[in-house]
Amino acid sequence: MTQLVLISRDYDMSHLIPPIQRAAPELKVSLYSTAHAHDAEVAVCWNPPAGAIATLPHLKLVHSIAAGVDNILSDPSLPRVPVCRVVDPHHARRMSEFVTWGVLHFHRQFDRVLANQSKEIWLRPQQSDPSRCTVGIMGLGEIGSPVASDLHRLGFAVRGWARSPKNLPGIDTFAGEHALAPFLQGTDILVCLLPLTKATRGILHARTLGQLRPGAKLIHVGRGEHLVPQDLHAALADGRLGGAIVDVFPNEPLPPGDPFWSAPNLIVTPHMASVASPETIGLQVAQNVRRLVRGEPLDNLVDMARGY
Amino acid sequence: MTQLVLISRDYDMSHLIPPIQRAAPELKVSLYSTAHAHDAEVAVCWNPPAGAIATLPHLKLVHSIAAGVDNILSDPSLPRVPVCRVVDPHHARRMSEFVTWGVLHFHRQFDRVLANQSKEIWLRPQQSDPSRCTVGIMGLGEIGSPVASDLHRLGFAVRGWARSPKNLPGIDTFAGEHALAPFLQGTDILVCLLPLTKATRGILHARTLGQLRPGAKLIHVGRGEHLVPQDLHAALADGRLGGAIVDVFPNEPLPPGDPFWSAPNLIVTPHMASVASPETIGLQVAQNVRRLVRGEPLDNLVDMARGY
Repeated sequence: MTQLVLISRDYDMSHLIPPIQRAAPELKVSLYSTAHAHDAEVAVCWNPPAGAIATLPHLKLVHSIAAGVDNILSDPSLPRVPVCRVVDPHHARRMSEFVTWGVLHFHRQFDRVLANQSKEIWLRPQQSDPSRCTVGIMGLGEIGSPVASDLHRLGFAVRGWARSPKNLPGIDTFAGEHALAPFLQGTDILVCLLPLTKATRGILHARTLGQLRPGAKLIHVGRGEHLVPQDLHAALADGRLGGAIVDVFPNEPLPPGDPFWSAPNLIVTPHMASVASPETIGLQVAQNVRRLVRGEPLDNLVDMARGY
Repeated sequence: MTQLVLISRDYDMSHLIPPIQRAAPELKVSLYSTAHAHDAEVAVCWNPPAGAIATLPHLKLVHSIAAGVDNILSDPSLPRVPVCRVVDPHHARRMSEFVTWGVLHFHRQFDRVLANQSKEIWLRPQQSDPSRCTVGIMGLGEIGSPVASDLHRLGFAVRGWARSPKNLPGIDTFAGEHALAPFLQGTDILVCLLPLTKATRGILHARTLGQLRPGAKLIHVGRGEHLVPQDLHAALADGRLGGAIVDVFPNEPLPPGDPFWSAPNLIVTPHMASVASPETIGLQVAQNVRRLVRGEPLDNLVDMARGY
């Protein structure tokens, strides 16, 4: 009987046991913290503690529960076994839910309303048509394009910026570095959905944030390394930026005491914008364990040279 | 020159001056607090302080900035002048934005994430497909139907309850009193969009709230009188109800110290779910002032006998 262990230092993995077990009743599934862990041949991980995977002598497969594997590959003691990831077909839909919540949160001023509640202040916020609010999406790929279209359908004025020209119905598109400033200058709510590349690392810094409309908001669901944290904190502190929702950080999990936790008008979310559903994780892990047992090629195998 | 004054005890009306002035440059517009108020022939109101309207000796028209006029007619000293209301053609869209925010807030567990941030706790919530979350809409009229369709489009399992049978694509509908219990029993997030009638007054009480799925959530955007406050507080306190967003109250503005402000897992919003845009208010007020000056019939005139 193949044994599988779930490992995370910051995420309750116990809810994944039933869907994995449903998809593969022949597996023995347990948490890393239990006595059975030692015999595991498969480790299913999210942010595993450094060194944990290396304690499993019978390991044949490491499986991420997400598309990202940085959090696994960063462990220098990682054994030389195949690493697979989960590719959720609903990734863009989940991301769009998160961004839609965030855009409505700012546009309908729930940020102010929640702050007022804590002071028992009844103050009806002003309301305006979403067509008067420009949402700027950075990144118009497989995720950014459907997110842009969803916000357009809700009535927002949507513009997008990408490296190369795009054609999206109803979306005002900007392409290339020279178009970044004009793109930012008309934006009320900036959504970062860029991939992390040499050109985009640190792209959210004092000057770019300062080009947004006064009091603009940021929804950052790209990668932690896109953002220069101290520049964001300064822009929030002096009010140039009216609010931010940040879901990704260079140092995850964000440690207690990090300035992000208590920055003014900033919502910290724990890298949750798009998480594969337990059902999808269960099915894809079960499928790959069967492929492993049968000696078949694995799905969504990580290329260790590329790192994804 | 016709003079117009803006009156509210709890809402900053100053942002309405530019759109009214744009729509009717011939008017002199000021706030009630200023010296010009005395000469006003038109009062534009939201929750006016009792007695304020009666201090205007030249008054010829009272105009609400919303569809609701209870807050104006409840003043016993209201002079016998015509009262008009604003009917926003985008009412259902604004309501849908509010409800969409609330449903995503609960489904994606932003309630827990915001509470965790205040304790500097990084804990990624579980995520599930919206098809596994049943949203139950009470009221399937001009507002409820489009809200139901919008949530269905986002992928939620949507059911609706109304007095009479309805047929809405993709929505599981329940009709009549006998169908209320089965409707509630399968609901994870309940949205109240009912009109206030003898049959619906107090409809959200201990037994109906107790019929929802354990830990269900409530989004109440109907009328304050639908809800029995102490029953909601009890259901939140003992966890039968996992959270609530309440936008309407029998006593508005909600006074400091009211138990609603500090109830566990309850978000108080200041009757903001659907507010007419300043542009719409400006255009409809301007139009009615011109009709008044020309002696033409007024738009959206309130029938004092019916009260709306």
